[in-house]
Amino acid sequence: MAHHTLTVDLGDRSYPIVIGAGLLDKGFDLSPHIAAGDCLIVSNETVAPLYLDSLKRCLPTQAVVCHALADGESFKSMAAAESILDELVRMRAGRDATVIALGGGVVGDIAGFAAACYMRGIAFIQVPTTLLSQVDSSVGGKTGVNHPGGKNLIGAFHQPRAVLIDTDSLSTLPDRELKAGLAEVIKYGAIIDVAFFGWLEDNMQALLAREVDALAYAIRRSCEIKAQVVAEDERESGKRALLNFGHTFGHAIENSVGYGEWLHGEAIAAGMVMAARMSGIEADEQSRLVTLIEAAGLPTAPPVTGSTKLREAMQMDKKAQAKKLRFILLHSLGDAYVTAAYAESALDEVLSTADG
Amino acid sequence: MAHHTLTVDLGDRSYPIVIGAGLLDKGFDLSPHIAAGDCLIVSNETVAPLYLDSLKRCLPTQAVVCHALADGESFKSMAAAESILDELVRMRAGRDATVIALGGGVVGDIAGFAAACYMRGIAFIQVPTTLLSQVDSSVGGKTGVNHPGGKNLIGAFHQPRAVLIDTDSLSTLPDRELKAGLAEVIKYGAIIDVAFFGWLEDNMQALLAREVDALAYAIRRSCEIKAQVVAEDERESGKRALLNFGHTFGHAIENSVGYGEWLHGEAIAAGMVMAARMSGIEADEQSRLVTLIEAAGLPTAPPVTGSTKLREAMQMDKKAQAKKLRFILLHSLGDAYVTAAYAESALDEVLSTADG
Repeated sequence: MAHHTLTVDLGDRSYPIVIGAGLLDKGFDLSPHIAAGDCLIVSNETVAPLYLDSLKRCLPTQAVVCHALADGESFKSMAAAESILDELVRMRAGRDATVIALGGGVVGDIAGFAAACYMRGIAFIQVPTTLLSQVDSSVGGKTGVNHPGGKNLIGAFHQPRAVLIDTDSLSTLPDRELKAGLAEVIKYGAIIDVAFFGWLEDNMQALLAREVDALAYAIRRSCEIKAQVVAEDERESGKRALLNFGHTFGHAIENSVGYGEWLHGEAIAAGMVMAARMSGIEADEQSRLVTLIEAAGLPTAPPVTGSTKLREAMQMDKKAQAKKLRFILLHSLGDAYVTAAYAESALDEVLSTADG
Repeated sequence: MAHHTLTVDLGDRSYPIVIGAGLLDKGFDLSPHIAAGDCLIVSNETVAPLYLDSLKRCLPTQAVVCHALADGESFKSMAAAESILDELVRMRAGRDATVIALGGGVVGDIAGFAAACYMRGIAFIQVPTTLLSQVDSSVGGKTGVNHPGGKNLIGAFHQPRAVLIDTDSLSTLPDRELKAGLAEVIKYGAIIDVAFFGWLEDNMQALLAREVDALAYAIRRSCEIKAQVVAEDERESGKRALLNFGHTFGHAIENSVGYGEWLHGEAIAAGMVMAARMSGIEADEQSRLVTLIEAAGLPTAPPVTGSTKLREAMQMDKKAQAKKLRFILLHSLGDAYVTAAYAESALDEVLSTADG
């Protein structure tokens, strides 16, 4: 079957990202990426009924056990990770076992963290089924769960052995989630690749209409950019932080409205507009960003929760725990930078957009 | 103050092991190994009253919070690791925070695992206060907790930034624990350094009498050997497995008598005799090992639990979960190797020593 393979270049931990239409349905052979041991497929109640049988066809010679988590960010807890660890112990899985995550970012993050912790790290494969997880969380090795005190406070860097992206799985994705995923796609253009940004401007309607070729290209280009950034800075000591464009504001929005009210991508969309405004880039570039985000059906302003609440949420954010807020700002579209030396007045002005 | 520094050579994650008498009491300055952030000292109810105040003197300029765990292997659980994570969240510790483990191997393993998981890994320092942890668990980056289904099933590789070994802390160590620690010291000689083995034969009485110079040399040489093995094979894909000499049998002994009945070092002592016997090395070399272990006041034979129970426990051991048992055997004293190709009859014969 037709597919495209990228590589995340991390020396002896390099891995392929395989992108194609119908990979699951046609039983793409995952065996070459799996050791001799048992496989545990981790999914959730929503995704498993849709794709579990297909995924099993990708593993014709493996002994497979399936474990379904409850669906939703509120279940992204240590308890969920422990339920996977319990299952691995029950299976008497060895060091040569493989955990396969089938689902969105929540499933991938939890399953990857469990794989990182079992016997100090076993193999792990991502089969992301949402646009957001296909273009973002499944690539790069960040895994983890939430703590009541903050999102993703508990986790590990644990790179997968392979990422299998079947663009057909987007056919079952609700519209709202498709749009939320497009926020991260737009982000890649905004921070690093203005040509891709221009392509998105030209092709947003095709993406929303789920045209296969458009989706495949958007996913591929997003993964290429992320793979390159991760290869340069796996542990986020520098460049990788650029991927957080819009996220300081976005996390604050998610926090201030209560998790689950706004989807992550929706909050990031509004956060990107805020970050661009704070950057002070040219008005026509700000306007291009706002127009593209609007075209994707995403919010371009924070909810009217008040600037105070937003500021407090920002201070609580884990990225603020090193005591000093950092922002990803833009020199221009396609050219982002990290800074802790920002003008308070610029921040105040942007936060005031939440005052209604 | 007089001290000796070794380096565990792991590229940009290299770290020093500082060994000396009175390092804690004299307030050895740990600041150079600590970033600007908060420090969380993790200890237990037994060790904290003895050394916590001294350790704080080693951190004169840091903001320090202390967290005491319950003492004992039975508390080496995910719940204990989570209590540390909760404390870090309460402190709003940032990525630049440091966890310092003060105590034996249990404290170090739990605290190191929590440090590995908090924000996907923060800095970690080991201040081991038992002989066993000084010569073994504090060096090499293995961290973790037990699962009801097996020891150390949950964990991470997370190297410390520094290891501070104060030989004076052994003055408060119960005799039985000192002897148990000597089992791992003997192990280093047996697997890799027959000259050190000879030195131990000559100096066992001095070690049991806690002569400072003898202890300091034994610790230093043990750490040198472990540091070199870890530098060559951090993730135990090869040579590091040699450090498990006596451990397949030892873990089975611990399991079959119930954890806590035999100390780890005691079980390893009997396990080394069993492994040497299974190796079929010359009778006089077997006899040298038995004599040295006896001189250390350690058991040279398994408890009479019956060979069946021991064999079952061995199958349950996590190292058996890859379905095939592996043993560390000796070509001769000071020359160990790993094998899964052993004679069943040799294993049967050795296990029969548990039949009484």
